[in-house]
Amino acid sequence: MVSSAIVNTYPLSSYTFGTKEHKMEKDSSVADRLARMKVNYMREGMRTSVEGILLVQEHNHPHILLLQIGNTFCKLPGGRLKPGENEIEGLKRKLSSKLAANPPANPPNWKIGECVATWWRPNFETIMYPYCPPHIAKPKECKKLYLVHLSEREYFAVPKNLKLLAVPLFELYDNVQRYGPVISTIPQQLSRLQFNMINQ
Amino acid sequence: MVSSAIVNTYPLSSYTFGTKEHKMEKDSSVADRLARMKVNYMREGMRTSVEGILLVQEHNHPHILLLQIGNTFCKLPGGRLKPGENEIEGLKRKLSSKLAANPPANPPNWKIGECVATWWRPNFETIMYPYCPPHIAKPKECKKLYLVHLSEREYFAVPKNLKLLAVPLFELYDNVQRYGPVISTIPQQLSRLQFNMINQ
Repeated sequence: MVSSAIVNTYPLSSYTFGTKEHKMEKDSSVADRLARMKVNYMREGMRTSVEGILLVQEHNHPHILLLQIGNTFCKLPGGRLKPGENEIEGLKRKLSSKLAANPPANPPNWKIGECVATWWRPNFETIMYPYCPPHIAKPKECKKLYLVHLSEREYFAVPKNLKLLAVPLFELYDNVQRYGPVISTIPQQLSRLQFNMINQ
Repeated sequence: MVSSAIVNTYPLSSYTFGTKEHKMEKDSSVADRLARMKVNYMREGMRTSVEGILLVQEHNHPHILLLQIGNTFCKLPGGRLKPGENEIEGLKRKLSSKLAANPPANPPNWKIGECVATWWRPNFETIMYPYCPPHIAKPKECKKLYLVHLSEREYFAVPKNLKLLAVPLFELYDNVQRYGPVISTIPQQLSRLQFNMINQ
């Protein structure tokens, strides 16, 4: 795990992007998703999910890599941990499943940095909070966002049904309508870091 | 400087609060404030200000100490650094000026923690961003928020014209109308930390 207040950020153009087979969503609706969450909770207890913040730069401004599903919904690469799985190892597994060539010829050497945010889901509902609300003894999910330090060059294979977008911080900021409460406050969570913009 | 992902948080009732003489605002209006900022910028260049996030707990939920001016406006304790002043030393000076007995009999031993957010003011206007916007070569202000680790017991002397409030994270969250963009996203910025709630 890498922990530093200085983050090297390379140009988007130094990365290569290909495609791989479809990676379908497990649920076809929000209701299905919450129902599956409930079933899993009964079996395994609180769900822990991990997501990665992958940074690149364009015009010396930081951009975040987001996976777009359909025309509107964006998410960070990541997903649910297996019961008992280590957070860092689980995030690496999820990043490879979403973004590495398959079978992995040259899998990226994922360097996971520090946790930048934690979100809690008190009930089997869509709403989450950046703290465990008072009087909630048994939250249903804990989601952690980690910084991922990319190397200077990397090959990403993106599932054919998804688009990988590099979205600037100024587009995310104060844009809860488009990106939701978790992704739209990433600029504030990263603001304490110093970005070392590297141009080749 | 103390840097840790675990933050000890003591009950509000373990602190003692008194009063001291008025501490008047330097400006009587936002326009005056921006005009003074402009004059200072011409003389000294970019303004750097530092503010402290002082945490206490009630009912095992973190609360932040805010200074209330009049009936509505809230701010974090802190202020502008002198030209060339060290950030940590400057924040200690500002915290004492706002919250320590005067003359300081037993000044709190301020333990400044890590920077949790940085905000930039691109122009002589009220709006700030959690990044320096592209194409802004000469920002007018950089404001840094630091965590302040309070000891188990402390005496605070609050200027008579201000009120010191302990505001829970759940009250700040998603409440930009009441607290503004900087203070209302403190819950997200602290979400990566683990609070060790200490009850006596």
